Amino acid sequence: MKEELKKSLRTYGALLLLGVTGVPLGAAVGLIEALFCRLLLKVTAVRVAHLFWCLPFLAMAGLVIVAVNQKFGGRGKGGMSLIFDVAYEEETELPLRMIPLAMLSTALTHLFGGSAGREGVAVQIGAVFSYFAGKKLPFKNAPGIFLVTGMAAGFAGMFGTPIAAVIFAVEVLAAGEMRYEALLPAFTASFSASAVASLLGIRKENLAVHISESLTPFLLVRLITLGIIFGITGGLFAWCLKHTKKYLGEKIKNPLVRVFSIGVILSILFLLLYRGRYCGFGTNLVEAVFHGEKVYAYDWALKFILTILTLSAGFQGGEVTPLFTIGATLGAVLGNLFGIPVELSAALGYAAVFGGGTNTLLAAIFIGGEIFGYDYLPYFFIVCTAAYVFNRNSSIYSRQKLTKYSC
Amino acid sequence: MKEELKKSLRTYGALLLLGVTGVPLGAAVGLIEALFCRLLLKVTAVRVAHLFWCLPFLAMAGLVIVAVNQKFGGRGKGGMSLIFDVAYEEETELPLRMIPLAMLSTALTHLFGGSAGREGVAVQIGAVFSYFAGKKLPFKNAPGIFLVTGMAAGFAGMFGTPIAAVIFAVEVLAAGEMRYEALLPAFTASFSASAVASLLGIRKENLAVHISESLTPFLLVRLITLGIIFGITGGLFAWCLKHTKKYLGEKIKNPLVRVFSIGVILSILFLLLYRGRYCGFGTNLVEAVFHGEKVYAYDWALKFILTILTLSAGFQGGEVTPLFTIGATLGAVLGNLFGIPVELSAALGYAAVFGGGTNTLLAAIFIGGEIFGYDYLPYFFIVCTAAYVFNRNSSIYSRQKLTKYSC
Repeated sequence: MKEELKKSLRTYGALLLLGVTGVPLGAAVGLIEALFCRLLLKVTAVRVAHLFWCLPFLAMAGLVIVAVNQKFGGRGKGGMSLIFDVAYEEETELPLRMIPLAMLSTALTHLFGGSAGREGVAVQIGAVFSYFAGKKLPFKNAPGIFLVTGMAAGFAGMFGTPIAAVIFAVEVLAAGEMRYEALLPAFTASFSASAVASLLGIRKENLAVHISESLTPFLLVRLITLGIIFGITGGLFAWCLKHTKKYLGEKIKNPLVRVFSIGVILSILFLLLYRGRYCGFGTNLVEAVFHGEKVYAYDWALKFILTILTLSAGFQGGEVTPLFTIGATLGAVLGNLFGIPVELSAALGYAAVFGGGTNTLLAAIFIGGEIFGYDYLPYFFIVCTAAYVFNRNSSIYSRQKLTKYSC
Repeated sequence: MKEELKKSLRTYGALLLLGVTGVPLGAAVGLIEALFCRLLLKVTAVRVAHLFWCLPFLAMAGLVIVAVNQKFGGRGKGGMSLIFDVAYEEETELPLRMIPLAMLSTALTHLFGGSAGREGVAVQIGAVFSYFAGKKLPFKNAPGIFLVTGMAAGFAGMFGTPIAAVIFAVEVLAAGEMRYEALLPAFTASFSASAVASLLGIRKENLAVHISESLTPFLLVRLITLGIIFGITGGLFAWCLKHTKKYLGEKIKNPLVRVFSIGVILSILFLLLYRGRYCGFGTNLVEAVFHGEKVYAYDWALKFILTILTLSAGFQGGEVTPLFTIGATLGAVLGNLFGIPVELSAALGYAAVFGGGTNTLLAAIFIGGEIFGYDYLPYFFIVCTAAYVFNRNSSIYSRQKLTKYSC
């Protein structure tokens, strides 16, 4: 009994230490993310202001990105796949130079108008940094635990959504398996990263939905149908990305030729299609949806195709912000069709297409809550559940594992 | 390509069918739960009205419960442990007679004043019924899937919280492993069970918290501390229950003698301690907390001890409703100490002690949202996360498994 109590106290002490360690680690990641985020906002502003000076050079920027990564990237070229491999102990090395390389590549992609996100990079930055620090820390399973911690902090620092970040990091590595061993430091690091980034001026998107629509059985059926469509869209995005990458890789074997030739085509397309409407993150489209500006019925499809082309060509950046955009614009269109307020339907699409594309359920629900307010959490639950079940387990993270009980 | 599309359509069709199957199944479970819930409310009302006619016969009721279960229970005596074993395919038989036996035993326990819950029984009823139906259904892994589906429907029908019910059922079998294969039918069945039970007059507790308290770093630290205390309390409950059962089983080998002798002691204690204040579910105490009536600083401790004695003696019922009560009364006490509004602190305790005792994270967070409103979801997230990490993986469900990545 006394021995057991002593053991308990030791465990509690170790847990507290693990939690406290997350705080400075998260703060450091939050600082890096804030700098990265500011850099991306800056280059985006430059691109928007000088579109005709930037877009024509997209293909050239692609050459630089591919060449630099070929020369200096080493194993780091694996990007998110490498993070997953390290999490499964199939790899043990995450070179620190991934951080500047990924930052630079993403900034170049955005400066010259590629359609891409940032979270893949944000999560990588956090993971690489935290894994590096974790290797030196005297906790049991420290590297694995701090890898997940860093992923959470990276997500939280970039998006300002600490709860979704924790859940995303513990949930994303395998469908249906939660990495709870990292729950505590991921939690403290996410709140810390988010606070530091916020102090440095990086605020989360706040698109609170203010409407009142009570849940009837008929609405429930419409929400489930919406969820199924969002899930299939997210899953299709992941599927198309994988197969387009493969197809282009086979057709144009030289990566420099590949990025250059597709870069040229993309430059022309981005210019022709409403002068850069589909460049970058797509936050312009999300804002259009929620501020009642013009949204075309095909916005989501064009963003979908152009993001896949950008990323398959060899440009860098994440997929999540474009998934948000695709979801919000698709949701806006479907809202009208389904007789659901456009604002709500767009918010649901924002979260559920993200869930469908990343094959995550809970992260998507909590993204909904943190970005759009918690009042509509039951709606996010309904729609994201349908999306999760119907995405056919496709994920933009090709190394994500399935478990025995995946759906 | 065409073949792949056909395969996708077949999969979608099968999924839709699985989802639709959940609806009547959930409705049936909801009907049974509503009857069971009405029975329990009825016997509770009788006991409250005629306390001195009921309480003295607690020991006799115990004799009946143990004798009947010995004679007719068979394998069903395993209760929740049997459900877990079936979920892990270590057993394949769940006798239907578990349903009337568990109902009867629980009703007797409550009529004569034992301190116990109902959810263990609600979940068993749903699981047994749905497993029985699932065995006849032509889906892949149907028995396992419908077992989980029934657990969700049982929980939803009893508590009127369909979202927490889905998450609880897919989460509870193993710490960190989600049974997503059952997600869709569990979802449809839970909403259906909850709707049917609601039509039959079983409403969920609605204790919406209406206060405004913004999240500062200092409050965050206090919330984490609260969570740690709640988690340790929940974990301790599970630990004490297990060890008290074992200890009494060794000390008093004959189960009839055991239930009778402890029943006599319990009768006396229940009468002496404020005339039945600690009998039954404890909803009287929860109401006292939220309606501003008198709450003693030791209410939670007495409810804790008396519930453990009741259940260890051989009486039947669940542990969850008492965990809610213990959490709410403990939270009310700690709220004053920590300078957190009592209403909020009690709500957080309600959810987090449940999470700590069942070793579930997400179910506890969503219980918080569904019972107390979603405005405070971030607070529930913070407190339940701390509770989950610090409960030392203790669970009232002794057959719950741990996974490689449990915390």
